[in-house]
Amino acid sequence: MLSFASDYVEGAHPAILQRFIETNLVKQAGYGSDEYTASAREKIKAACGCPHADVWFLTGGTQANQVVIDSLLHSYEGVVAAVTGHIAAHEAGAIEFTGHKVLTIPQYAGKMTAADLKAYLVTYHADESAEHMVRPGAVYISHPTEYGTLYTKAELVAIRAVCDEYEIPLFLDGARLGYGLAAPDTDVTLHDLCDLCDVFYIGGTKVGALCGEAVVFSRRKAPKHFLSIIKQHGALVAKGRLLGIQFDTLFTDDLYMTISRHAIRMAQLMRSIFREKGYEFFMETTTNQIFITLTDERKAELEKGCVLSFWEKPDPHHTVVRFATSWATTEEDIRALEAIL
Amino acid sequence: MLSFASDYVEGAHPAILQRFIETNLVKQAGYGSDEYTASAREKIKAACGCPHADVWFLTGGTQANQVVIDSLLHSYEGVVAAVTGHIAAHEAGAIEFTGHKVLTIPQYAGKMTAADLKAYLVTYHADESAEHMVRPGAVYISHPTEYGTLYTKAELVAIRAVCDEYEIPLFLDGARLGYGLAAPDTDVTLHDLCDLCDVFYIGGTKVGALCGEAVVFSRRKAPKHFLSIIKQHGALVAKGRLLGIQFDTLFTDDLYMTISRHAIRMAQLMRSIFREKGYEFFMETTTNQIFITLTDERKAELEKGCVLSFWEKPDPHHTVVRFATSWATTEEDIRALEAIL
Amino acid sequence: MLSFASDYVEGAHPAILQRFIETNLVKQAGYGSDEYTASAREKIKAACGCPHADVWFLTGGTQANQVVIDSLLHSYEGVVAAVTGHIAAHEAGAIEFTGHKVLTIPQYAGKMTAADLKAYLVTYHADESAEHMVRPGAVYISHPTEYGTLYTKAELVAIRAVCDEYEIPLFLDGARLGYGLAAPDTDVTLHDLCDLCDVFYIGGTKVGALCGEAVVFSRRKAPKHFLSIIKQHGALVAKGRLLGIQFDTLFTDDLYMTISRHAIRMAQLMRSIFREKGYEFFMETTTNQIFITLTDERKAELEKGCVLSFWEKPDPHHTVVRFATSWATTEEDIRALEAIL
Amino acid sequence: MLSFASDYVEGAHPAILQRFIETNLVKQAGYGSDEYTASAREKIKAACGCPHADVWFLTGGTQANQVVIDSLLHSYEGVVAAVTGHIAAHEAGAIEFTGHKVLTIPQYAGKMTAADLKAYLVTYHADESAEHMVRPGAVYISHPTEYGTLYTKAELVAIRAVCDEYEIPLFLDGARLGYGLAAPDTDVTLHDLCDLCDVFYIGGTKVGALCGEAVVFSRRKAPKHFLSIIKQHGALVAKGRLLGIQFDTLFTDDLYMTISRHAIRMAQLMRSIFREKGYEFFMETTTNQIFITLTDERKAELEKGCVLSFWEKPDPHHTVVRFATSWATTEEDIRALEAIL
Repeated sequence: MLSFASDYVEGAHPAILQRFIETNLVKQAGYGSDEYTASAREKIKAACGCPHADVWFLTGGTQANQVVIDSLLHSYEGVVAAVTGHIAAHEAGAIEFTGHKVLTIPQYAGKMTAADLKAYLVTYHADESAEHMVRPGAVYISHPTEYGTLYTKAELVAIRAVCDEYEIPLFLDGARLGYGLAAPDTDVTLHDLCDLCDVFYIGGTKVGALCGEAVVFSRRKAPKHFLSIIKQHGALVAKGRLLGIQFDTLFTDDLYMTISRHAIRMAQLMRSIFREKGYEFFMETTTNQIFITLTDERKAELEKGCVLSFWEKPDPHHTVVRFATSWATTEEDIRALEAIL
Repeated sequence: MLSFASDYVEGAHPAILQRFIETNLVKQAGYGSDEYTASAREKIKAACGCPHADVWFLTGGTQANQVVIDSLLHSYEGVVAAVTGHIAAHEAGAIEFTGHKVLTIPQYAGKMTAADLKAYLVTYHADESAEHMVRPGAVYISHPTEYGTLYTKAELVAIRAVCDEYEIPLFLDGARLGYGLAAPDTDVTLHDLCDLCDVFYIGGTKVGALCGEAVVFSRRKAPKHFLSIIKQHGALVAKGRLLGIQFDTLFTDDLYMTISRHAIRMAQLMRSIFREKGYEFFMETTTNQIFITLTDERKAELEKGCVLSFWEKPDPHHTVVRFATSWATTEEDIRALEAIL
Repeated sequence: MLSFASDYVEGAHPAILQRFIETNLVKQAGYGSDEYTASAREKIKAACGCPHADVWFLTGGTQANQVVIDSLLHSYEGVVAAVTGHIAAHEAGAIEFTGHKVLTIPQYAGKMTAADLKAYLVTYHADESAEHMVRPGAVYISHPTEYGTLYTKAELVAIRAVCDEYEIPLFLDGARLGYGLAAPDTDVTLHDLCDLCDVFYIGGTKVGALCGEAVVFSRRKAPKHFLSIIKQHGALVAKGRLLGIQFDTLFTDDLYMTISRHAIRMAQLMRSIFREKGYEFFMETTTNQIFITLTDERKAELEKGCVLSFWEKPDPHHTVVRFATSWATTEEDIRALEAIL
Repeated sequence: MLSFASDYVEGAHPAILQRFIETNLVKQAGYGSDEYTASAREKIKAACGCPHADVWFLTGGTQANQVVIDSLLHSYEGVVAAVTGHIAAHEAGAIEFTGHKVLTIPQYAGKMTAADLKAYLVTYHADESAEHMVRPGAVYISHPTEYGTLYTKAELVAIRAVCDEYEIPLFLDGARLGYGLAAPDTDVTLHDLCDLCDVFYIGGTKVGALCGEAVVFSRRKAPKHFLSIIKQHGALVAKGRLLGIQFDTLFTDDLYMTISRHAIRMAQLMRSIFREKGYEFFMETTTNQIFITLTDERKAELEKGCVLSFWEKPDPHHTVVRFATSWATTEEDIRALEAIL
C-alpha cells in the first residue's frame, strides 16, 4: 500500500547499504574510534566550512536532544523552547528525565521569535524570585520545525543576538535538516548554522540513513568527557562504524543534499496536486512535510488506499494528517496518490 | 593488520546486510511497529520455547541494562551485581544516572554465588537500619560474564531460588549470550534462561549484528508503557526495522547459534595454540574470549603484528589482554596469529 | 520596620516554643519514631476525621511537593498543574529534578478547572502519539492557590470526578491550608479534603511553625517504604521531634485553626483599609494574602516605612506587591500600615 | 528509661531555645537572608579563621551530603568514599538519587588512607577504558567517622596532597565535628579543616541543635546559584532563621566547643566504666561514640534498663551496640548506666 506516513518508512539510501557490504570485513576499533567515523567527521567539517568543529554521532533524534541538552546545562538550568518543540511535546519527557525543565514560549507555525525569547529572559532576570525559578541555560530550536516550517536567516540572527546578550548557547535540532537546507525559499545554509548555533545536529535517520544523527559543536568544543556522557546516557554504540559509514556515505559527493533536493521536488509536486484538488493546507510549508486537514469521512476513504499519519485533531470532525516525502519517494508514488485524492 | 581486539571489530553477518537490501523499499511503520520486528519477536519466542514472552529491541548493551533495570526497580531500590559486573564497573555510571545504586557482592571468575547473594539479602533484611539503606530490588548477572566464564544450570537454579525467596526479579545480561549457549561445556539452554530469569537479553551487537539487543521478558510482561520508558531514555529508534530485520535474520534457520558455534570453534583453536606455546591464561574460559597475561615486552612485540585489547594491569610489568573471536574469524586469521606468537 | 512581606517573617507560635522547652530533655528515638510524632499523627487523623489516614512530616513545602509527587508517579509520568502552580513556576525545577515533567493547563485566578483538566486528559488519551508524550499520572492543586484564592467544594468535587474517571491521584498543596479553611467564604473543610484528595499536606511553616508540613495520605496509604523515599530525597530529619512537637502543639486545642482565623481577621481589616484608601487589588482574595498593584513611585514611597514583597511586574511602571498576615500580626501593625498608606 | 542510643535523643541546647524566644517576633526576610543567618555566617568564618569562606545552612546530614556532592560533581563523575562512609552505606541511595556513583575504597576503622585513594586514582587514570568508567570527581571523608574514629592531621594532609595532585575537591562530613575537635588526642583544628578541605560541614543536629548543618566552602566559593541548587533539592527552608539562630547561638561564646568538650568528658567517663567492667570494645574511639560488643543474652538484659542502639551483627550470637553522649548527658545518667552494667 501507498504510504507517505513519514520520512522513515523505508530503509537506507542504497549507497549506504553498498558501503556496509564493501567495508564489512575491515577490522575497526569500537566506540567511534574507527576510521569511517574519523572520515565522516572530516567530511562534515568540510561541508560545514568549519574546520575546528567537534563532530559526534548518536543514534536518534530524541537521544541527540537529550544528551546534548543535558551536557550543555548546569543541573539547575532548563532549556527554552517553543511550546511545540519536539523536546517539549513528543519525547516522553526525555529532557526532564535528565533533571531539566523545558521552559516554553509561544510558537508561530512552530517557530519561536527572538522577541519572545528576549521577553522571557528579561522577565526572568528582572524577577526578584529568579533564584527560586529554573534558570534558562540554553535555547532549543528545530529547523525545519515540527510543522515543517523554516526560520529565515534574519530570524536566526536575531535569536543568536539574544543568546549572545544572555550568554546562553543555541542548540538547533536538525532531525530533518537536509530538507530545510534544500527548501526552495530558504536563505539559510549549513555554513550559517555553524556560525549561528553553538551546537546543532544533522539528521540522518529521516534523511537517508537507517539511524544516526551527526552532532556538530561549531562555536565551542563538546563538553569535556563527552564520550563518558554519551555512555552514561546509554547512547554509545560499540560498532561505531554503524554511524560512521552512514555519515561518511551521506557526505560523499554531496549525497545528503542530493537526496534532500529530490525529496523536496517530490514534495513540491505533491503540494501542487493537493492545491489543484482543493485540499485544505493546515500549515504552509516548503519542506518535505505537508499537513492537510481532512474531514473524518475523507480520511477514512483515503486510508483505504494510503497509510496516513495522524497529526492532530483540530475539532471533533476533522483530522490533520501528514504526508512526507523522502529520498525514496518516486513520481510514480505521487501519481498513485493523485489517483485516489 | 590482525585484530582479535573484540567481537565487534567487523560489521554484520552478510545475511543481515542482504536482508537490508531485499527489504529496503518496503514501507513500514516506525518505532518498532514494523512487520520485521513483529516477525523477529515471534521467532525469538519460538527459539525460547516461551510463547507468552514479551520481546523488545534496543540498540546496545549499556542501554539495555539501563532501561531494563530502571524499569524493574522502584525509585528507592538498587540492583545487586557481582563487583565485576558490567553495570558496576564499565558503563560510566549509566545505572546511577537513572537514580539507582549498584549493590556489589563478591565475584569468583566474574560470577556471583547464590550463597553470597543470600547472605547479602539476609544481612540487609536483618539490619535494623534497613530503611536507611538501599533496598535490593533486582539481581543482575551476566552470562557469559565479563571474564568470559559461564554459570552452570545448578548455579542459576540456586540464584533463582534466592530471588524467589526474596521476591526480586533476576535479570541476565546476555551481551554475548550466543557464545555462552554454544560453549562446549555448558548445560544452560535458552529455554532454561526463560524459566530461570524474569528478563534477559540476547545480545546482537557482539554476535553478528551491527547493533541491537533483544530483551526477553519471560516470566513477567514488560512494565506497563515500556515504549514510553524506552523513549524517555532516548532509546527508541524511529526505523525499528533496523533492529527487527537484524534479529529476524539472526533467528532464521538457526543463524544465531550457527555463527556462535563457529566463533567458539575458532576460540578453541586459538586457545590450543596459546596453550601449546606456553602462554599464561589469566582466566580459564570456554567462550569466545581468551584472556592472556603478557609481559610488557612481549605485548609490545605482539602489537607490531596484531591489535591487542587491554584488559587490566595485574602488576606494573604485566598486562592482561583479550583475544576474541566472532562470526567473522577465519582459520587463516588464527594461523596468522600463530605465526607471530 | 513594618513588614507584611510574607507569613514567614516571624518565628513560631509561642506555644510551640514552650513545648520545645518542656520536652527538651525527654529522650526520644530518632527519625520520626518519637512519641510526639506519634501523638501528632493521631491528633491530625482526629482533626481530619480520617482514622485510617497515613500521616508523615516533612520540613518544607517544596520538599513535600517533591517527595510526594515523585512517590506517586511512575518514572514516565508527569503531574498536571495550573500554569501558575508553585511546582510549575517557583520551585527551581524540584519536580523535574526527580525526572518528572510538570504538565501545565490554564489558570484562572490561580485555579485550574475540572473542564480544562478533563480536556487535557481527553486530548492526551486520544492522541495516537500518546506513548511518545508524558503520561499524566497525578494532579496537583494548591489551596489556597499561589494567588490566595480558594477552590469551592463543587470545584474540588468536579476535579475529583475527573481524577476518578482517569484513575489518577489528586494531590493538594496546603502550604497555607489553615488560611484557606478559615476564610470567611469557603465551604471546604478538612474532612472534605480527606474525602476528595488522595494526599494533601497541612502547611506548618506558614501557619505558626518554624518549619514543617504534615503530609496526609487519606484515600490510600503512603507508597511502600516511604521512609526510605524520604531519606533518599535528603528529607529525613534525625530529630523527628522537631516536627512532631510542632504539629502536636498546633493540633492541640484547635490552635492551628485559632491562629488561622486570627490571621484572616487581620487580613480582612487590612483589606478594608486598602479598599477605603482606593488601592487597586490585583486579585480578589479572602485568605491571608492581599495583592495590590502599585505605581513604582507609590511603591518607592511605601518602602520607606514597610518591607514590601515583590510579586510581579504587570507593566514597566507598576508592580504587584503582596501583603500577608499571620498568627503574629497585630491590629497595631495594621494601624501602623494604615498610617502610611 | 536511660538512653544513650544516639546523640540526637534530646532536643536542643537550652541557649538555642532561649534565643528562639527572644527573637521570635523580630520580622525577618526568608530563605536565609535574615540577619541571624548573616550573623551566624560571620561567627563561623571567625571561628574558622577563614574570612573568605562561603557559609550555607542546611537541615540535616544526608541532605548536606547530597546537595554538596551533587553541586561539586559533573554529571559523569562520582565521589570516592571509604566503603563504610555514610553516603555509601546509610543514606538510602541519596547520592545515586542525584545521578552519581559512590566509588568505594577500603576502610580501616572507618577511615580511608591516602595510599588507597592514590592507588584508586592511579588505576583509574591508567585504565585504557577510563572513559567507560565513572570518573572520580571528589573525595568524601567523615570526621569523626561512622565508627567514631578520627583522622590525624598528617593523614588529612596526605589525602589533601592526593586531591591536589588529581585536582579534585575534598569534602568532609562533619556531622559530629564538635566531638572530633574536642577529642583528647586529636591534632586537627577547625583552622586545619579550612586549609585542608575544599568544603566541609559543621554538624549541628548531633551537636546541640534541633536540626541544621553549616556548610563551609573554605578553599573555593560555593558553586554559582547555590541557592537555586538548594531549592531544587527541596532543601531550602522558608524561615531561614530556624538555622541561622541555632548556629548563631552555637558560635557565640564558644558554645559549640564547650558542649562538645562536655560530651567528650562524659564519654571518657563511660569508657572507663566499660573498661573497668571488662566489656569488649568493638572499636577504639576517643569521641562521643562507644561501640561495645555484647552477647545477645547480655544485650537482652541490658535492654531492660537502657535503650540500646543496634550497630551491626558480627556473628549470630553477638551484637555491636552504640553508646553515645551529647551536650545533655549528665554524670548521673552515666552512674545509672554503671549500676546496671
